[in-house]
Amino acid sequence: MKIATYTADGTQFYGAITDAGVVALSPDFPQWETLYQAIAAGGFDQLVAAVAGKPITHTDFTYDMVMPDARRILCVGVNFPDRNAEYKDGSELPKYMSLFPRFASGFTGHDRPLIRPPENHTLDYEGEVAIVIGKGGRRISQDDAYDHIAALTLCNEGTIRDWVRHAKFNVTQGKNWDSSGAIGPWLVPFTDAAQLDEARILTRVNGEVRQDDTLSRMMFPIRREIEYISTFMTLQPGDIIVTGTPTGAGARFDPPKYLKPGDVVEVEVNGIGTLRNTVEDELV
Amino acid sequence: MKIATYTADGTQFYGAITDAGVVALSPDFPQWETLYQAIAAGGFDQLVAAVAGKPITHTDFTYDMVMPDARRILCVGVNFPDRNAEYKDGSELPKYMSLFPRFASGFTGHDRPLIRPPENHTLDYEGEVAIVIGKGGRRISQDDAYDHIAALTLCNEGTIRDWVRHAKFNVTQGKNWDSSGAIGPWLVPFTDAAQLDEARILTRVNGEVRQDDTLSRMMFPIRREIEYISTFMTLQPGDIIVTGTPTGAGARFDPPKYLKPGDVVEVEVNGIGTLRNTVEDELV
Repeated sequence: MKIATYTADGTQFYGAITDAGVVALSPDFPQWETLYQAIAAGGFDQLVAAVAGKPITHTDFTYDMVMPDARRILCVGVNFPDRNAEYKDGSELPKYMSLFPRFASGFTGHDRPLIRPPENHTLDYEGEVAIVIGKGGRRISQDDAYDHIAALTLCNEGTIRDWVRHAKFNVTQGKNWDSSGAIGPWLVPFTDAAQLDEARILTRVNGEVRQDDTLSRMMFPIRREIEYISTFMTLQPGDIIVTGTPTGAGARFDPPKYLKPGDVVEVEVNGIGTLRNTVEDELV
Repeated sequence: MKIATYTADGTQFYGAITDAGVVALSPDFPQWETLYQAIAAGGFDQLVAAVAGKPITHTDFTYDMVMPDARRILCVGVNFPDRNAEYKDGSELPKYMSLFPRFASGFTGHDRPLIRPPENHTLDYEGEVAIVIGKGGRRISQDDAYDHIAALTLCNEGTIRDWVRHAKFNVTQGKNWDSSGAIGPWLVPFTDAAQLDEARILTRVNGEVRQDDTLSRMMFPIRREIEYISTFMTLQPGDIIVTGTPTGAGARFDPPKYLKPGDVVEVEVNGIGTLRNTVEDELV
């Protein structure tokens, strides 16, 4: 089952992606204008259950960011041991995870271009698994953490690398360029711990593997992310956590391998899918 | 003119605060369920124009966070020269501003308690002016910046200080505790540059002045904040920018003067008002 936000005939819908086309669901759920609203209202299971027996409604469509009106997107930084070593600052493994919010406006959808701005050309990729919270809570234990996940998706946590270190603290201005990253193509219901525990992230640029690692090697596993984040803020249905990227981003090569117009970036995770994006220069 | 979000008889409204009580506006604008939605739709001037001649509807009410469903709140860090010096790391004045997002859930309203969590007691205050964007835009020039501001309000950018430095980068987990800060009491329409250019921030704890400075001394003036932020992201109506706090937060005293239950914190700015909050321990 794959639930996506997409545009067809100039209108935005959400629905289920099948090999033959899309089954629109949004016309049957007028109380939820968007996929985010459906999940925020606790309705994701209801959407999934409604797909069976419905006809294909669209075969000509384009993907949008999977939840373009997502309110809260929290990203985990530097979450693989080799990536911590990449910083070469002699630091021990950190005690706490690094976290930064991103606005939904920083992400486009599957098969759409990442935008390289004229101000700076250090556009870089980061392949990641993102989880969507289905059940809210505060001070969630690691044992219970997976019960709070409704769905999984993929993120290319695209970054304007030079701007990440503009300021003394905080990566905000390198991480929030309009359409510099992507989330999608779709949401896959989370029903089995193995979907995360056995997941492997592959990121390719023009077919060349740049990132290849497994979630099992994370310094801060997803259960711990949910426990830690929910210590300080009440998690709400519809929240997205982008769980961390493996080593191999373009900035770490010598010389760096930044993205350029015409490149194709793919983030692939077994059981979720492949998020594919091209790269274009912004028209200013 | 003061436009606020408030609760009366168990229902949330937005309306105009007067000496005699509140004039509810939301019942007359069913297309905008919240003050945020009204501003996001470009309707703030319409709300302000609708107040004249309307009767007082509520005299018994409580303030809420001024825009509890605000989508994007971006805070500027370390924006006064003495505060930069407080870091005592010998650094020159920075070339770029420090920026970090906060979620709306981290803020409560006027006359409501800031919540000190059981995990950590280094709850600290930061008095600031916040601006609300009324007209969106990308790559806005400093000359045009003020044309994009709809309204002004106040922020106590309350922080769990110990958690700000949990991670190598980013202050996220110290800045997003539920109800650790406040925004309000109301929005004041921005009609004259002097409202910002001649503004003075006073923060008092139990009547003792802790912060006292003028916006004219900011390292990165508000015009520059709008220019810089809109370089990487398209500003949208309803976005909030929390513009920076003067020296004198509790953490900088020796020993530190953190907030404790029973304290009263006031953030006062001429022409905007006074944001007052008590402090309570969280009931867990």
